[in-house]
Amino acid sequence: MDQVLCDFEGSFLVKYREKYPEEPFIPLEERNTFYIADQYAKLEPDMQDKARDIWNAEGFFLNLPEIKGGCQALTEMSQMEDVDVFICTSPLTFYKYCLQEKFKWVEDHLGPDWISRLVITKDKTMVHGDVLIDDKPRIRGVRDPPSWKQVLFTAPYNQKVDLRGRQRLNTWTDDCWRDIIEDFKKRI
Amino acid sequence: MDQVLCDFEGSFLVKYREKYPEEPFIPLEERNTFYIADQYAKLEPDMQDKARDIWNAEGFFLNLPEIKGGCQALTEMSQMEDVDVFICTSPLTFYKYCLQEKFKWVEDHLGPDWISRLVITKDKTMVHGDVLIDDKPRIRGVRDPPSWKQVLFTAPYNQKVDLRGRQRLNTWTDDCWRDIIEDFKKRI
Repeated sequence: MDQVLCDFEGSFLVKYREKYPEEPFIPLEERNTFYIADQYAKLEPDMQDKARDIWNAEGFFLNLPEIKGGCQALTEMSQMEDVDVFICTSPLTFYKYCLQEKFKWVEDHLGPDWISRLVITKDKTMVHGDVLIDDKPRIRGVRDPPSWKQVLFTAPYNQKVDLRGRQRLNTWTDDCWRDIIEDFKKRI
Repeated sequence: MDQVLCDFEGSFLVKYREKYPEEPFIPLEERNTFYIADQYAKLEPDMQDKARDIWNAEGFFLNLPEIKGGCQALTEMSQMEDVDVFICTSPLTFYKYCLQEKFKWVEDHLGPDWISRLVITKDKTMVHGDVLIDDKPRIRGVRDPPSWKQVLFTAPYNQKVDLRGRQRLNTWTDDCWRDIIEDFKKRI
């Protein structure tokens, strides 16, 4: 979900600057670690906690704007022949609000039927699939290799990542995602 | 989790009888449907909603007692060589409380490390594994057949179910679970 369907980074930065207008911040184009906290920790020691307070707050997930075109693409993808779409998302360590808010987000943006397509897990390798569209540069877990091939969804912090044979998806707003899915359908 | 690790049925009945002492109820040994609501609906039309109010209430999941020996068995199972244990649980349709309470339950009863072993999904066929210990008589989903073989954890409503080649696990308090896991290890 985060940074593939939901604009975590953009929303974080807006809320962070509202709450800490005097503090240093990292512009989106300079974000270079997968976990925001890691890069904020390098600014000043306590910035990590200040950053965490933003996404751990009640309502943060619920109010995340959509990554442009993501929900429309998912809806269309789910209507493709022989394609089953699931949303696989990892919870925050501080899970008090994010679990129910991720569910509510999916319900609000995609509809209640999508709740049964939502899988919450810290280990995405345990979920079966052919393709995983995800922004994380390196996904590890108990199952190695996983059943799926990752398509790296582009985010500022993964621009320079070694693709190791993976495809990239830069945006939902052109029809590239459709070509990728059609291509996978031919291969499997 | 429910009726394998957490005593959903027993706790439901106690709370239901406390809240509706004058209403008819179904003793545990007479429970014969997987979903409680289905059987309560047959008592009187509005009993289904009354029953649902019990498990949809804040704190219901959090306070579920453990199925005897379950957490100890899981802890020991996770220490077995070449065994990775995950907890795979389906959320209620009314997910407001159960998601975070399932996480908290696991944290309280098994420890914070187990959070990363928790998978929340309505479709358990999508989760990869060799064995799924589950009380549901018939588990269906997108992946058919799933990667795992089910071991049916005994509950009142699944006593007479056709096992269709499946093994049963009646309790965590003897060492049968260990034999089942060792047996699977030999087969795979």
